[in-house]
Amino acid sequence: MDNVIHAIQDEYADDYVWCYGCGRLNEHGLHLRTGWQGEETITVYTPLPEHTAIPGFVYGGLIASLIDCHGTGSASLALHRKNGHEPGYEVEPPRFVTASLSIDFMKPTPLGVRLKAVSILEEVHPKRWKIHVEVFANNLVCAKGMVDAVVMPKSFV
Amino acid sequence: MDNVIHAIQDEYADDYVWCYGCGRLNEHGLHLRTGWQGEETITVYTPLPEHTAIPGFVYGGLIASLIDCHGTGSASLALHRKNGHEPGYEVEPPRFVTASLSIDFMKPTPLGVRLKAVSILEEVHPKRWKIHVEVFANNLVCAKGMVDAVVMPKSFV
Repeated sequence: MDNVIHAIQDEYADDYVWCYGCGRLNEHGLHLRTGWQGEETITVYTPLPEHTAIPGFVYGGLIASLIDCHGTGSASLALHRKNGHEPGYEVEPPRFVTASLSIDFMKPTPLGVRLKAVSILEEVHPKRWKIHVEVFANNLVCAKGMVDAVVMPKSFV
Repeated sequence: MDNVIHAIQDEYADDYVWCYGCGRLNEHGLHLRTGWQGEETITVYTPLPEHTAIPGFVYGGLIASLIDCHGTGSASLALHRKNGHEPGYEVEPPRFVTASLSIDFMKPTPLGVRLKAVSILEEVHPKRWKIHVEVFANNLVCAKGMVDAVVMPKSFV
């Protein structure tokens, strides 16, 4: 159903797998994983008990992290597909970074349930994508976000 | 110099001190602390090694967390002052939540140095503030944010 089998983060090059949000080799991190579900992209994550805002609700920084890494992962998926590749092909995907991020917190997000970020993608430029994100808990939208993601400049490495 | 002696989070009521970002009793959290510096508010935090994006740089979710908790803390400071109180008076301050959050990542934020979030506050309504945030590393602005904070609705508790 909503599980991500082939995540784009599984195939990032070794320099790019240390992100606290989505790096597979960051042992303290969240290990967010983003994949296709039809024409949409999804990332699922169940916050830990410590990811509290007010008791019973998820803190905003966790939701921001989910939206951020989901956004860069989704942009990577989209450009990778445009280039003729899918996760699972073992072809190194492009790595995006976040230029800007905005979030509307629609309602308190309950702690203890799995969150699902879902996106439709919009190409702005060959190296720049807008990712409109909805974050669901119990099938209700708790937050809406927008990520403006750009291919990582070489100056980063 | 830039240390926060009296933080607003030190005086939140016991129900509100569990936030992963700024709760003093969240043992896994960041323990962000926000105070006045003249007419500005500041929050300082040195990210941990695991708060990586690309090696050497801070991941966006940590910056979002810093901006988020700095924003709600700053709004609380501002309304508290408007009500005649300062941190250190041991009067329970109002608790804000984030309605929306936006961030522009101006340049890669270096890991391993102390970050400082600084704000000027703008009252929108007695229960709603806009907090314009600049995040500095090594005296350079790495990110700019805006937090729209509202007094926590009673439905939260």
